[in-house]
Amino acid sequence: MLSTICYLILTIYYFHMNHNYAIIMAGGVGTRFWPFSRNNFPKQFHDVLGTGQSLLQQTVSRFEGICPIENIYIVTSTDYYELVKKQIPTLSDHQILLEPSRRNTAPCLAYACYKIASKDPEANVIVAPSDHIMLKESVFRERLTEALQKSAEGNYLVTLGIKPSRADTGYGYIQFEKSESIPKKVLQFTEKPALEIAEQFVASGEYVWNAGIFIGSTQSFCGAFQNFLPEIATKFEAGTDVFYSGNEADFIEKTYSECQSVSIDVGIMEKANNVFVILSDFGWSDLGTWKSLYDVAEKDEAQNTVEGNVLVYDTQNCIIKTPSDKLVVIQGLDGYIVAENEGVLMICKIDEEQRVKNFVADAQKLGNRYV
Amino acid sequence: MLSTICYLILTIYYFHMNHNYAIIMAGGVGTRFWPFSRNNFPKQFHDVLGTGQSLLQQTVSRFEGICPIENIYIVTSTDYYELVKKQIPTLSDHQILLEPSRRNTAPCLAYACYKIASKDPEANVIVAPSDHIMLKESVFRERLTEALQKSAEGNYLVTLGIKPSRADTGYGYIQFEKSESIPKKVLQFTEKPALEIAEQFVASGEYVWNAGIFIGSTQSFCGAFQNFLPEIATKFEAGTDVFYSGNEADFIEKTYSECQSVSIDVGIMEKANNVFVILSDFGWSDLGTWKSLYDVAEKDEAQNTVEGNVLVYDTQNCIIKTPSDKLVVIQGLDGYIVAENEGVLMICKIDEEQRVKNFVADAQKLGNRYV
Repeated sequence: MLSTICYLILTIYYFHMNHNYAIIMAGGVGTRFWPFSRNNFPKQFHDVLGTGQSLLQQTVSRFEGICPIENIYIVTSTDYYELVKKQIPTLSDHQILLEPSRRNTAPCLAYACYKIASKDPEANVIVAPSDHIMLKESVFRERLTEALQKSAEGNYLVTLGIKPSRADTGYGYIQFEKSESIPKKVLQFTEKPALEIAEQFVASGEYVWNAGIFIGSTQSFCGAFQNFLPEIATKFEAGTDVFYSGNEADFIEKTYSECQSVSIDVGIMEKANNVFVILSDFGWSDLGTWKSLYDVAEKDEAQNTVEGNVLVYDTQNCIIKTPSDKLVVIQGLDGYIVAENEGVLMICKIDEEQRVKNFVADAQKLGNRYV
Repeated sequence: MLSTICYLILTIYYFHMNHNYAIIMAGGVGTRFWPFSRNNFPKQFHDVLGTGQSLLQQTVSRFEGICPIENIYIVTSTDYYELVKKQIPTLSDHQILLEPSRRNTAPCLAYACYKIASKDPEANVIVAPSDHIMLKESVFRERLTEALQKSAEGNYLVTLGIKPSRADTGYGYIQFEKSESIPKKVLQFTEKPALEIAEQFVASGEYVWNAGIFIGSTQSFCGAFQNFLPEIATKFEAGTDVFYSGNEADFIEKTYSECQSVSIDVGIMEKANNVFVILSDFGWSDLGTWKSLYDVAEKDEAQNTVEGNVLVYDTQNCIIKTPSDKLVVIQGLDGYIVAENEGVLMICKIDEEQRVKNFVADAQKLGNRYV
């Protein structure tokens, strides 16, 4: 009797697991993380934390036990096909979705969703960035399981919201309805607010950070595209018969060239009224900037984060990341980024890191090899 | 009649010129100029000022018109034979004197002096470091000509003393007798004084900096060795018959192994009472430290000295010297050295540059390739 129940539970679990898909968005460049993030080797392909795995590899591992490897789809630029193949060699080519141009995240999700739906109409998808970190992976999996349960209950779009630890103006915020229910109903999305607003959000206790992770059935997502981005929906619906065929690349080439550029947040989430949020706290960081890496990285007694062959003297509160084959001697720096990668060395105050994008623009003028 | 006088003057000049010899000391390492100055490629072989010529090449050029190229002798370490040959290809092997070990400057001078004297008993020699700069070369030649005239008059040792522009505690000072005569009689040599003493020296108007350039006949120098360093004199006198022969290297190997280590200043100049100084002002710097390079180098509007492919933002009073094939972006530094060479990057406050020798010691522990 017990073994029959166990068998049933396992069968149900396995059945569900097979309909769970992860869509990992790996097409970005992460300019603010220059000179590490580069056009030909963006942030997600770097072992940013020195763990032995790139952020993309960590992201793929994170879905272990949530969905089988054959249900993991990576959407990236055609430029990064080789990098993805090399880093995740277990993927079949049909799991690597190549975008011929950048159209922000909504077309990226549409491509993967309509493709998966064409094969598995019962699919539940998790769409997530490839370049974030989650220090508490088991907590992440628990929250994700709750989100998948909610999405399986009906036409819901579910997101994981991160409990804010500070009034960060670099993140999007999600306001949720005050109630006892889990998950919470989402009231509104707010992109990168001013500091005062962010402080009010955090103080109110009614806001969480938007980590850009969304969960729903393909039916829910496709429905949302039909409602809020009908042009995109129509274009990708037309692909139903070409996905997984030799004509897919041509179809996508044409579709992307005609496709508007819009994010999932702006195009769908801000408009939909069936969005729920799971309040989460799993040591998340988008590693969007040097400061955010400094915040999560290990530090020595002088509050320096050092990766490389480095001798420091009278130096504190710095993040130093330099090639291991070079000796770096640093004396008398306080609160600086010292970063070298592939022929570019950057020395910049951590507090001035928002200027990195200006450096990149100026470097571009000197040659494409620097960006 | 006039043409006969001209001919006579030219003949005398040419006769004298052929007895003028330059002994260029190029065996040092210049540790304080790390990471540019390295054991296998010391400062004197670098184009420190970006002129297209190394300091050694500039030093050799500086004797043009003073002595013919075949009378220029370079004393260096056996390790640097190839570097000297490459940089000064016009030299014959007998002009490159190879020291099997470091014994400071007195044995270096003795080797060259006794060798030259064995061939040309009427030789006048100028002994000079290989890694200094003289911005006003024609003034240098004028002073040198005056020194050669004095040394030709008898048993004198002549030195060029630099009019001090500040109370530098890194230099040696020469006190001269107050008088109208040119050159001035030297009263005493003082090695690197304390700041207070240096200030008194400069204020008194009776002191000049010791540039380490000495002029005298080989007879005067050999006499001084016999008087003040008789052991060294005896050892090198024994080489009279082996210099310029195939046995020279073996003789020097043995002689150096038994030779005391002592400087020209301490061993001879401080003791001799036939020393004269020519007061000079020809834009001299020993380029001993990064600060001294910064002082003489060209600066931009923000008082930065930049050599390399560098973008600066909010940065002033810095000396930046990095490889041209690397892009360097610097934001928010004031008064720093940023120097990279051969696998070593150093960032250090200019005011703390005396610590470079500690960095070198620490770097040595990590591997000989770094020093």
